[in-house]
Amino acid sequence: MIKQMCLSKIMAIPDAPEKDKRIILSGMRPTGELHLGNFEGVLRNWIELQNTSRCFYFVADWHALTSELDTRQIGKYSLDMVADWLAFGVDPYKSTLFIQSSVPEHAELSLILERLVNIGTLERLPTYKGYLEHLAGDRKIWEGKDENRNEASIGKKVKAKLLEGDERLAAIARAEVSLGFLAYPVLQAADILLYDTTHVPVGEDQLPHVELTREIARKFNRTYGELFVVPEVLLGEAKRIRGADGRKMSKSYDNELLPSYGLAEIDQRIRQTITNRPQLTSKGDPYECPVYDLQRIFNQEQEIEIGRACREASIGCFDCKMKLPGKITAAYESYRENRAKISEDYVKDVLREGNKIANVVAKEKMSQVKEMMLMGYLKR
Amino acid sequence: MIKQMCLSKIMAIPDAPEKDKRIILSGMRPTGELHLGNFEGVLRNWIELQNTSRCFYFVADWHALTSELDTRQIGKYSLDMVADWLAFGVDPYKSTLFIQSSVPEHAELSLILERLVNIGTLERLPTYKGYLEHLAGDRKIWEGKDENRNEASIGKKVKAKLLEGDERLAAIARAEVSLGFLAYPVLQAADILLYDTTHVPVGEDQLPHVELTREIARKFNRTYGELFVVPEVLLGEAKRIRGADGRKMSKSYDNELLPSYGLAEIDQRIRQTITNRPQLTSKGDPYECPVYDLQRIFNQEQEIEIGRACREASIGCFDCKMKLPGKITAAYESYRENRAKISEDYVKDVLREGNKIANVVAKEKMSQVKEMMLMGYLKR
Repeated sequence: MIKQMCLSKIMAIPDAPEKDKRIILSGMRPTGELHLGNFEGVLRNWIELQNTSRCFYFVADWHALTSELDTRQIGKYSLDMVADWLAFGVDPYKSTLFIQSSVPEHAELSLILERLVNIGTLERLPTYKGYLEHLAGDRKIWEGKDENRNEASIGKKVKAKLLEGDERLAAIARAEVSLGFLAYPVLQAADILLYDTTHVPVGEDQLPHVELTREIARKFNRTYGELFVVPEVLLGEAKRIRGADGRKMSKSYDNELLPSYGLAEIDQRIRQTITNRPQLTSKGDPYECPVYDLQRIFNQEQEIEIGRACREASIGCFDCKMKLPGKITAAYESYRENRAKISEDYVKDVLREGNKIANVVAKEKMSQVKEMMLMGYLKR
Repeated sequence: MIKQMCLSKIMAIPDAPEKDKRIILSGMRPTGELHLGNFEGVLRNWIELQNTSRCFYFVADWHALTSELDTRQIGKYSLDMVADWLAFGVDPYKSTLFIQSSVPEHAELSLILERLVNIGTLERLPTYKGYLEHLAGDRKIWEGKDENRNEASIGKKVKAKLLEGDERLAAIARAEVSLGFLAYPVLQAADILLYDTTHVPVGEDQLPHVELTREIARKFNRTYGELFVVPEVLLGEAKRIRGADGRKMSKSYDNELLPSYGLAEIDQRIRQTITNRPQLTSKGDPYECPVYDLQRIFNQEQEIEIGRACREASIGCFDCKMKLPGKITAAYESYRENRAKISEDYVKDVLREGNKIANVVAKEKMSQVKEMMLMGYLKR
């Protein structure tokens, strides 16, 4: 049951956290409706962490801008997303929920940290190289192509040289990638360091970003004095959920399961899901099967039995699949009930209260940053 | 005479500027004592502009961080620099003097604008390429050198390939240049656009940065709606002052004239100054001579006469030089008198009042930015 009341009396600025109490920070980009991968992969973990740790969970709306300049849906996506958090069980009486763009210190600290990181360090991050490769696809890139925009070369014949490897990716970056894309891991570092975060829950693809944050924290501490907590990684024990086509679940692949789906839609999506088992008589490998991902989460009492039957080919994919729709619908029943009761005004109240707390914590930290850098010279 | 009184009653938030009234923004990095080049090249212009325009002059302390992480002197340099502005005639009753790092909106807007600029656009700026060339000097750069730091390649023999041209500069950038250096022209764009600046007084080397600002303003306006004023360049009519060795006047070249110099020091420095005239009998070209730079500023009544005499070789360099020390000392007499009277507390008061005004203007603009981007969704 969601408590819809005035929050301000209950939420309070936390005292110094108890010794050894973990401080957790995690954010989500408001880029559209959350799917089951987000719920089971991230939110499930958030709900567990809030019982043992001091948690900051935020709407990463500046980060949304990194990949998409069109912000027409950003308000709707943000408020809907936080309503989802609340309906699923993230508790604003335990965790601080806030909006990144409402705390200007994220931008301020990011600006400073950008001056502590070399360009090469950012270019080597796998997410960055991966994005360039994604943009490059199988296009042929010719030397001088993006320099054509330079006035000096207009009308000149450009020597045609087909670029390869790193040179090809560098040309793509110059022509098509924003500075913000190269810089966003530094903004993540600022997000993390502002709140004295001790543990950052991440998936494997984000590990290098936490490593970068650690490097930056140590560099600041060496240069200006010990201030930042060097955060640890908290590798999620979340079980993965692949989409219907076996790839990572994502709206852009049209392979997702949404918690708003009714029984018929879930049923249909699961029927479509590939199982990597060519024939009924061939033995399966459950860990290669996206349907088994779902069994492990929504049908734990039969998980082992079904795994064995799959390996022995004593159960068919259709029968395996048909165990799921009812269970998934049931698992999201209380979420759907809660979600229907959460008003936009309530979400805004929660965020306003959370913003206040985040602002106090971030402002205090940023003032320490300036003090350490001797940039608080008007105050003395 | 410097008015040392409470400013708060006199300074006020400006109303909407009169139609056609120019808005000027200009900043200086607090990197050390100002020399005569700064005074005559920049401040002289500021003082003139404040009589006809709405002027914002700021301590660019975030920018100082771009080239120098050591901030131990930043407070002293900033306060001394503003004392110099005031002593020379910048009037806090006419102009708004403030500190960049005291207005968080500079960082916020910069963060957003970084997402609107491609990496290639920044890499092509002459200041960036020039800096890389300066770092590169005549060093030989081998392929793979900076990748040696990558664990995977430790112990592996790296294929030795000598890099040239753009590849060589790119390797330097990866290994030694901070993201902040690549990004600082975007911070300049944020500085300019926050205040609805109509005219930016710049030297020729900064022209491409104003052009970048115009590009960014237009891109924002196209993407989110008309908000930013597209600023014009105000090319300084300031006369140049070269240093004693004929290069740009700069502390790092040890060729500067300081306004704090007494007559003897000025005399000595001018005697050292090269004149590009091999013998007394050879005819000179005054426009090639750093001593003539000074005649044009400090000895205007004899400027034409001396120029002619130099071309005809009817005046010797020693005689030409000796006309200057007394005149320079006299020109800075009222500055030195004022400077001695300005207390650090007065400078701080001026900046606190200016910060208030800058904060109001920048906050209003940033709130419009968020509104245009539909990111003010908590307010609705």
